[in-house]
Amino acid sequence: MQIKELDTPFVLIDLERMGANIRDMQQIADLGRVRLRPHAKTHKMTEVATLQIEAGAVGVTVAKLGEAEVMADGGVRDILIAYPIIGRRKIERLAALLPRAAITLAVESEEGIAAAAEAGRLAGCRVAVLIEVDSGFRRVGVKPEAEFLRALAARITEESSLELKGLLTFAGQSYDTESDEERRRIATIEAGTVERLAAMLEADGYRMEIVSAGSTPSSRFVAGLPGVTELRPGTYVFGDLMQVKLGAHELDRCALTVYTTIISRPAPDRAVVDAGTKLFSSDGEDSPIGTGRGYAIGHPDVTLEWMTEEHGMLRLDEAARGLRIGDRLAFIPVHCCGVINMTDRVAAVRGSEVEAIWNVAARGKFQ
Amino acid sequence: MQIKELDTPFVLIDLERMGANIRDMQQIADLGRVRLRPHAKTHKMTEVATLQIEAGAVGVTVAKLGEAEVMADGGVRDILIAYPIIGRRKIERLAALLPRAAITLAVESEEGIAAAAEAGRLAGCRVAVLIEVDSGFRRVGVKPEAEFLRALAARITEESSLELKGLLTFAGQSYDTESDEERRRIATIEAGTVERLAAMLEADGYRMEIVSAGSTPSSRFVAGLPGVTELRPGTYVFGDLMQVKLGAHELDRCALTVYTTIISRPAPDRAVVDAGTKLFSSDGEDSPIGTGRGYAIGHPDVTLEWMTEEHGMLRLDEAARGLRIGDRLAFIPVHCCGVINMTDRVAAVRGSEVEAIWNVAARGKFQ
Repeated sequence: MQIKELDTPFVLIDLERMGANIRDMQQIADLGRVRLRPHAKTHKMTEVATLQIEAGAVGVTVAKLGEAEVMADGGVRDILIAYPIIGRRKIERLAALLPRAAITLAVESEEGIAAAAEAGRLAGCRVAVLIEVDSGFRRVGVKPEAEFLRALAARITEESSLELKGLLTFAGQSYDTESDEERRRIATIEAGTVERLAAMLEADGYRMEIVSAGSTPSSRFVAGLPGVTELRPGTYVFGDLMQVKLGAHELDRCALTVYTTIISRPAPDRAVVDAGTKLFSSDGEDSPIGTGRGYAIGHPDVTLEWMTEEHGMLRLDEAARGLRIGDRLAFIPVHCCGVINMTDRVAAVRGSEVEAIWNVAARGKFQ
Repeated sequence: MQIKELDTPFVLIDLERMGANIRDMQQIADLGRVRLRPHAKTHKMTEVATLQIEAGAVGVTVAKLGEAEVMADGGVRDILIAYPIIGRRKIERLAALLPRAAITLAVESEEGIAAAAEAGRLAGCRVAVLIEVDSGFRRVGVKPEAEFLRALAARITEESSLELKGLLTFAGQSYDTESDEERRRIATIEAGTVERLAAMLEADGYRMEIVSAGSTPSSRFVAGLPGVTELRPGTYVFGDLMQVKLGAHELDRCALTVYTTIISRPAPDRAVVDAGTKLFSSDGEDSPIGTGRGYAIGHPDVTLEWMTEEHGMLRLDEAARGLRIGDRLAFIPVHCCGVINMTDRVAAVRGSEVEAIWNVAARGKFQ
């Protein structure tokens, strides 16, 4: 099928561009001699996870247990759940998942450790855990202080159904700066925090097999620093205007677009496309290149000025005024993870051909 | 089942509150002697549409053809598609839908009229159309000028498969002001624009059976104005912090909440819940009552300060510091339509009981 035969709006994944993105990040990991464990929250598709693993990734990272279940269903055999598992229902679901794949779990509280231990007991196996450390993002994670780390490590060791494997951190503050120098500085803190604490715990007699850090904006810096064994970038697989703004992706390497149709031409300098916030999401800030809430491929003279739920309002510069009702435009969005979270299907495309329609199997798996 | 037995996050719909909201808007319509045709883009559920119709609504409004298909599947017999239908695939889908329900279609361009006419020919029936007029929102719709309206009306009459039924407008600018006086002024323009043009077309010999206007913030003003025959509010069915801010809904009448669990307590004044932008959405502005991205029912001392995709970061004032990992909080969101668009299921609750789990059947039907 040709792309132009698709009904719109539709999310397109350019397989050539995605393939290049996957290879490039794998190379960053390989050169840094660290493992790559991509975060699947960006794509939510087992097909993409499989391509990442075929290219050399050791497995995937997920946020939610529901995403882990989908990835296991899709044949992924090594899954890190980088999220606190809390509550009886989730303990039971985790216990059911444990025999199905090599699961590693981030923990950062007494309650999280107790939940993981209980899941291990229910499943009759040992659960690999990483202690999540806050390296400055102030989201979740234990404070990076010796006493807290030692207390949690000791607590984990008390549980015969748990196995402490190492540390994990996420320095999300690297999303808040557009300066390469500043991001390098944050990456140094990110990696340095877990490297220092892992060394301390190793000196205490714990084995620190995994020291996990690095997001899309920070991975290329983190990969070259000592102590880290594993990177967990997510967004790199597609790229978006947010990453372009951060200097972590190039515009002509962005692999995900929202394919739309012009449905109204209310004025010579205005057009409306058939997608709004219910597909683009309202996430993030406007395009770094002045084209508003998206970038129309091949049409730098089009600005996605504002959106309502199902309408995208375009301002057309002189050169774009030939656009007519029925014409198609493909937009790179501000935040690709937000777009994937809106759609149950995507079109995997090569050139002008649709190679496959993929289900976004982990969409909506927020439990 | 009890609410507390639900896994989280989960979206709850309070049936008592929703019932009161449905009754109140029906009363506004009844007192104004206008028909009510609620916009189903807010709830996307046939169960809710059915309750609205049982309370007196004449049918529903939808944005997308895919939503119309779901509503027809669910037994809704009278559907207004308030969106331009453009492109061959959509014409064919519209033709397939026409025999299944009384469909009315908004048109605002030559291309839209041609598409509607073709769908009617394919289905072998006449399609009821309304001309969409721009009453100042600058989204879609024909300019409210006599010559444009007359040209479109004449063009519609040329098509034997079309039947011009009236006019439609949406004054979305009423979402941009918090002043009741200003919203009343906008409603007067909204209603006045279509009333004036409908009178003109009637004088020209066209029958103007339907003059449709009024959103959640403007309906109570529009209902009392002459000329309008039909209201199309959507968000009123649940209410949210955006409508509270606009003065169009009361906090203790908001029927939709995001039910969450505290999964981390990184500091005495901080907690993290298990829902972020992938359930709350990033739509709209912060709470009008200073509680950030949501309002925790029963906990005015909790601020939903910021979110990432799967984490909601709370600031806890003194009185809330007893909250512990595992505790549950239900948040009224900023924008209920954005939340519904994220979830495949909701829990319909009465008091502390879950009466039913409903599928959000039209979620993701953006085509």
